[in-house]
Amino acid sequence: MKHADWHKEFNLYQQRVNSGLENQIKQLPDVAPQLKEAMAYALLNGGKRIRPALVYACGNMLELSMEELDAPAMALECIHTYSLIHDDLPAMDNDELRRGKPTCHVAFSEASAILAGDALQALAFDMLATMPVSQRMPDYRVTIIGMLARASGYSGMCGGQALDLAATDKKISLSDLEALHKSKTGALLQAALLIPAAMAGLKHNEVTLLSNYAGAMGLAFQVQDDILDITGDTQTLGKPQGSDVLMKKSTYPALLGLQGAISLTEQLYQEALQALDALPYNTSSLASFADYIIHRNY
Amino acid sequence: MKHADWHKEFNLYQQRVNSGLENQIKQLPDVAPQLKEAMAYALLNGGKRIRPALVYACGNMLELSMEELDAPAMALECIHTYSLIHDDLPAMDNDELRRGKPTCHVAFSEASAILAGDALQALAFDMLATMPVSQRMPDYRVTIIGMLARASGYSGMCGGQALDLAATDKKISLSDLEALHKSKTGALLQAALLIPAAMAGLKHNEVTLLSNYAGAMGLAFQVQDDILDITGDTQTLGKPQGSDVLMKKSTYPALLGLQGAISLTEQLYQEALQALDALPYNTSSLASFADYIIHRNY
Repeated sequence: MKHADWHKEFNLYQQRVNSGLENQIKQLPDVAPQLKEAMAYALLNGGKRIRPALVYACGNMLELSMEELDAPAMALECIHTYSLIHDDLPAMDNDELRRGKPTCHVAFSEASAILAGDALQALAFDMLATMPVSQRMPDYRVTIIGMLARASGYSGMCGGQALDLAATDKKISLSDLEALHKSKTGALLQAALLIPAAMAGLKHNEVTLLSNYAGAMGLAFQVQDDILDITGDTQTLGKPQGSDVLMKKSTYPALLGLQGAISLTEQLYQEALQALDALPYNTSSLASFADYIIHRNY
Repeated sequence: MKHADWHKEFNLYQQRVNSGLENQIKQLPDVAPQLKEAMAYALLNGGKRIRPALVYACGNMLELSMEELDAPAMALECIHTYSLIHDDLPAMDNDELRRGKPTCHVAFSEASAILAGDALQALAFDMLATMPVSQRMPDYRVTIIGMLARASGYSGMCGGQALDLAATDKKISLSDLEALHKSKTGALLQAALLIPAAMAGLKHNEVTLLSNYAGAMGLAFQVQDDILDITGDTQTLGKPQGSDVLMKKSTYPALLGLQGAISLTEQLYQEALQALDALPYNTSSLASFADYIIHRNY
């Protein structure tokens, strides 16, 4: 797919999820205005919307309708946003800048940030429980709710974040670093692909291929994040450049050298493309996605 | 129902949910041992298990099996426990004692406590998504997942907690205090009754009566909590007596006087019993429950 076409498609996904999320927040009753404001602030703050875009791209490939994909796309972004809010807290990464703006606890208060994160997690599950289901397929809502719960909970994102905190100030092995990222960011990125796959009733071997793509792409995403922490600049990143080094976190460039890390992203990119090649669908959007993940500069 | 019989029944419910929760924690893989330990510490810490007991009592009344009720009972306790962990954080109520032991962030760390709460919320939804469903009834899992998400999220518990924080250091009206507690604690207690009702396919007018019982009982629960903060002692309560006054929180005794608050619990108790009387079931357990709520001393 041409670069420009992919960007157009990505943009469309971003706009769709943004307006969907805005509507969701608007629909909340005014029971706790300050909490609502904190949720809106964090959620509608111009994120890259990578997880929703993956849901739409993968779902389109599998001929699901955009309407069917809205709730999973939004739910994943709610989970991602809540994790950012909580990760930014003083007791965690203590970040004051996110997406170029003060983090939620700086703009509101720590208490509001904790609650906004908690409420966004609940909202994600509410969205999936109340999403429309088409007549032509069996009701997959319970299945994908379970997938999201596991991808975001102890065995997924939360567990990964705990490993990340435990690894601060320590030098850990490459395999430990990989395990950490596989759960911390990989599980949710994988869910963004495997949820549409479950909705479309994909066969086991095709799910495995999508899962391989997700694994390589998810890891590449993290390696590129580590690279950008060294080579990027604060303004483009929207968060302080060099914060990993400051927090004494184990990173791929620290373990492999900058050039080694760059080679790794290239290798993972090839692995991702290989998995896609074996799938009997038009995988051009997902291929462009992997290309974007590796070559993004923010 | 005789006092002793009710206590036997309550005990049975407590033991059942405790062993169920222990099993759930044991089944978690060892991916993040410290996080698992923090989750277990908070979850298996000898709570009163009021929400699970309500699920079992209401479910038994409606002739649901104990096996069907296990997941909702455990899920509600996971949500309740996560809310206690987060409420106890320094940025929120800053409590160091809970159920007679150091709070989760004191025993572990603030970061671990935030993550343990987050992971327990996800675990609650995972439990409901994977619970067994009986052949004889339609699959109610999506329905009760939505109910739990709304009862615990922005429109329920999280919203109520935000209102509570906003009301600290302020004198608020009786109706504002009622609205606050209706969402902060009432929504989850109500869910403990309405989830079994949804599972049993209860008719609308019966749901309304159960809901009236839940409303009166839930509010009585909170008024009694406020009373115990004045009349109880730290050892029996398992948390510091007088902490509401210290935090300058609006309470029922502060607004109505101690005697006025005691009269209110009695009035709510009668309301709860009236709602039960109109239900065509054996409501003796739920009546004993209301009695326990009003007359407990911890």
